[in-house]
Amino acid sequence: MRASRFLIATLKETPNDAEVISHQLMLRAGMIRKLASGLYTWLPLGLRVLRKVEAIVREEMNNAGAQEMLMPVVQPAELWEESGRWQQYGPELLRITDRHDRAFCLGPTHEEVVTDMVRNEISSYKQLPATYYQIQTKFRDEIRPRFGVMRSREFIMKDAYSFHASEECLQATYQVMHQAYCNIFDRIGLEYRPVLADTGSIGGAFSHEFHVLAASGEDAIVFSDGSDYAANIEKAEALAPTSERAQPSQSMTKVATPSAHTIEEVCAQLAVTANNTVKTLIVLGEAEEQDQTQPLVALVIRGDHDLNEIKAEKLAGVSSPLTFAPEDRIKSELGAGVGSLGPVNLPILTIVDRSAAQLADFVCGANEDGFHLTGVNWERDASLSRTEDIRNVVAGDPSPDGKGSLGIKRGIEVGHIFQLGTKYSKALNASVLNENGKAEVMTMGCYGIGVTRVVAAAIEQNHDDNGIIWPNAIAPFQVAIIPININKSDAVRLACEQLYADLLNAGIDVLFMDEDKARLGVMLANTELMGIPHRIVVGDRGLENGEVEYKGRRDSESRQLPLAGAITHLQGALAH
Amino acid sequence: MRASRFLIATLKETPNDAEVISHQLMLRAGMIRKLASGLYTWLPLGLRVLRKVEAIVREEMNNAGAQEMLMPVVQPAELWEESGRWQQYGPELLRITDRHDRAFCLGPTHEEVVTDMVRNEISSYKQLPATYYQIQTKFRDEIRPRFGVMRSREFIMKDAYSFHASEECLQATYQVMHQAYCNIFDRIGLEYRPVLADTGSIGGAFSHEFHVLAASGEDAIVFSDGSDYAANIEKAEALAPTSERAQPSQSMTKVATPSAHTIEEVCAQLAVTANNTVKTLIVLGEAEEQDQTQPLVALVIRGDHDLNEIKAEKLAGVSSPLTFAPEDRIKSELGAGVGSLGPVNLPILTIVDRSAAQLADFVCGANEDGFHLTGVNWERDASLSRTEDIRNVVAGDPSPDGKGSLGIKRGIEVGHIFQLGTKYSKALNASVLNENGKAEVMTMGCYGIGVTRVVAAAIEQNHDDNGIIWPNAIAPFQVAIIPININKSDAVRLACEQLYADLLNAGIDVLFMDEDKARLGVMLANTELMGIPHRIVVGDRGLENGEVEYKGRRDSESRQLPLAGAITHLQGALAH
Repeated sequence: MRASRFLIATLKETPNDAEVISHQLMLRAGMIRKLASGLYTWLPLGLRVLRKVEAIVREEMNNAGAQEMLMPVVQPAELWEESGRWQQYGPELLRITDRHDRAFCLGPTHEEVVTDMVRNEISSYKQLPATYYQIQTKFRDEIRPRFGVMRSREFIMKDAYSFHASEECLQATYQVMHQAYCNIFDRIGLEYRPVLADTGSIGGAFSHEFHVLAASGEDAIVFSDGSDYAANIEKAEALAPTSERAQPSQSMTKVATPSAHTIEEVCAQLAVTANNTVKTLIVLGEAEEQDQTQPLVALVIRGDHDLNEIKAEKLAGVSSPLTFAPEDRIKSELGAGVGSLGPVNLPILTIVDRSAAQLADFVCGANEDGFHLTGVNWERDASLSRTEDIRNVVAGDPSPDGKGSLGIKRGIEVGHIFQLGTKYSKALNASVLNENGKAEVMTMGCYGIGVTRVVAAAIEQNHDDNGIIWPNAIAPFQVAIIPININKSDAVRLACEQLYADLLNAGIDVLFMDEDKARLGVMLANTELMGIPHRIVVGDRGLENGEVEYKGRRDSESRQLPLAGAITHLQGALAH
Repeated sequence: MRASRFLIATLKETPNDAEVISHQLMLRAGMIRKLASGLYTWLPLGLRVLRKVEAIVREEMNNAGAQEMLMPVVQPAELWEESGRWQQYGPELLRITDRHDRAFCLGPTHEEVVTDMVRNEISSYKQLPATYYQIQTKFRDEIRPRFGVMRSREFIMKDAYSFHASEECLQATYQVMHQAYCNIFDRIGLEYRPVLADTGSIGGAFSHEFHVLAASGEDAIVFSDGSDYAANIEKAEALAPTSERAQPSQSMTKVATPSAHTIEEVCAQLAVTANNTVKTLIVLGEAEEQDQTQPLVALVIRGDHDLNEIKAEKLAGVSSPLTFAPEDRIKSELGAGVGSLGPVNLPILTIVDRSAAQLADFVCGANEDGFHLTGVNWERDASLSRTEDIRNVVAGDPSPDGKGSLGIKRGIEVGHIFQLGTKYSKALNASVLNENGKAEVMTMGCYGIGVTRVVAAAIEQNHDDNGIIWPNAIAPFQVAIIPININKSDAVRLACEQLYADLLNAGIDVLFMDEDKARLGVMLANTELMGIPHRIVVGDRGLENGEVEYKGRRDSESRQLPLAGAITHLQGALAH
């Protein structure tokens, strides 16, 4: 591509409303522009990256035996009513009405549509398994779109759906898809991890997320140093302590803590560490009958631990989604504010984390504003009727598989695969005749990749102070040719034109700065900002020795190359 | 592709609700399925065709120097208010509201969005010309979606927009796009014509439509046999007659025609030909002030001619869009029904077509129910204050360019290119600094191809009683391999597997019927229905002589080919 025919829309300043580095760099490099909240136009530079990601995803899905199709963006309400999601799905589902006052939605996902297609087209177990996918525009009306294309309202997803006559068959396809996802992220050139995940609102029994590792990632993911165990922290089990609880050695004492409102302040005043305190969180429980008020439930965890809301909301007696109790209700029913609660004589259902249940002589709130208790012991001072795993694991915890201990990294979720089971096929009555001629509901899997999100995640993982650093496989251009004084030197122009033609012939994507509009420094800065992984600078001085200057995007120094060997060198550099 | 891994969803019966052949065949071949009115899912077979059309369009747009980008489906109302189209556009524009009660629409076209992008990114004439395009999902809330993907609500369009600092520059790019469109339809392998067209509601000065020729086409297109003049019949001028009008030879006579309600019945009763009669149509004119009733206007054309509504609604004094007057108003103001009107003593503005104005001794309604006049002559009996071109041309009319005479064919519009001028750039104030540093509004062109429509049009043009006949370039599969008794004969299986592998290696798209599920006749019928342009049947009897059977989709007979030469033969057949 000649720069004279390509929209280079780099920005010097970082736009104010861009919070994360990928959003900043996508704007600054001229990849995207905001049209409205959560709606982005992909400029030519950005679209080149997007299309390369799409192409890799498509190839690997085809290799895995999935069949590409294309379903509408606009979906009729009737199907969503059949699955029950028309009522269940929150306001992220953008519901619309056509000119005849019929109800539709903009599809955030396509389980209903694909299940409807399959129930109409597939009638025999002999036609199974079958996996269908599409790469398509989706819409989710996020309440607060942010981070650019990382959490936009309109986005492109690859969504695949598999259909099976048996659970074993689903598991086999699930493994094939797991491998296809690994192939995809390997080929794109990202550092990523598949991790065990919670199935959330999509439903189903078993699920993995694929995370691109990046310090800025929204999710915490957990690894064992002694096995290949990896999970989203939402999902990772904190094993029960194996040692016996210590015997009480102190007597319970009430102390005034009028100015201590946080665990840190309590620890400082009482000279204890947070791991010898507990905090008591109050959430809503399940009402026994539908019209009754939801009772309060106490969740007790160690002061240095974090509540795991996903684990908590799955517990019997706790309402889902997890809802913290309003302050005034706590005050009136328990007689003290949130910061002064504790498990001693607490008149509500109290669920104690297994690590908190292991403490002796610990500190907790006294259920009286401005007071704490020290030397508290379970059984003796506070009843311990129910212990559960309700905390996030922390680095150093033993791995749930019993091998090694856990470490924690940050990740950006870019893919998610589910063993859905029969949630949708049952609701829509999608069945096939089995070997005995009897109708049987199909078993399903579903498999998503956030294609637009992958682009942003790649940047979160690969950038420096000068801009983006694209992996070769998804770079908008693999090589930049930058001339020095092209309008003044025929030798430079000739050498550049020849190199440009040769690179195109070799099938290499190249951006040729064929105009003398910008100063050399600006061209160098722009191509670094745009993340082009390899660049060749051509000037008279080098050409006198038959040389050009090469610099890889991650190299600290440039070096001279013989012009004649430039292509071979670049081919080598691109092969890595 | 192995048939065992591909959704073959052919139907024996023609679905009831499919009116046109392309819709019927797309359903029967298993290319698409209806999700809701005007919303279609593209099954794997259909999507393969769609993607091939897309790929050709993309390559030729890139070759023409256009830059691909991608704009959102969902567009904010504010931009449409800036252009004025939020109010102007009818209910085809699906207006929606997000969770924050902000107004958006599903984009039927992207002039506003791209102009907004360009006004933000391009500031100097030096950055022009620039052409941007996208291949993207669009939505138009048609009141009566029909003909399958030919007139669906959700569809895929290639829309391109060019920006210029001068009119000459626009014209140069317009020519480049015209050529790119010719390249696209040439490569797809369709018989098509670019024709002069009306610019309609998109606006602008100059425009061509690209029509795929097909007997079932909705549009009439007009050609000269003496030049390359071609136009949509909406646009083609009917030249004024060059000879003098004949002198009156009859006196005007009133005759009773109580049972004659149509031109045909009047001609039969009075023993005259339709080309010596006139019909008088009553439409609404323009009110002088906004609150006044629109006056009636008479349009007089020859009895054998058709009114051209596009020409008529552009005339001064006639309201646009053209609206026929209600019967009761005609009756009360003119004293007679529609079938009995004529230009003699008609008390309203009367516009006479130039061919009708040439008649002498003609027949017309008497403005009295049940009566006609014969021997009517202009000037003597009826005033002739205004003559215009308001009819459709007919076969045999002289070509508007003065060379040859006109013929008429039917066409399906698949592309449309416009010299837009400054309609949108002015409204959105999209300007650049010119050579003198002064801000100047950009001039625009826009260029559309209905990508999903091309698929249907290709079928309308290429089919027979057995199904679709794909051009090689967009066939979902180029070749079908059909074995006879593959499960019983190792020789057949071996030969098929080898041929399949060799064809894939040669880069040929092949569908291999690798399973013994269907009878031979069913497999043959299915591949013909699906339109696969070449097929090889492999059976034991032929293999004994080292032969297989080849049949091109348009061939009446199959013939034997040496197995060893099959690939070379197919490569030859595909090169045409």
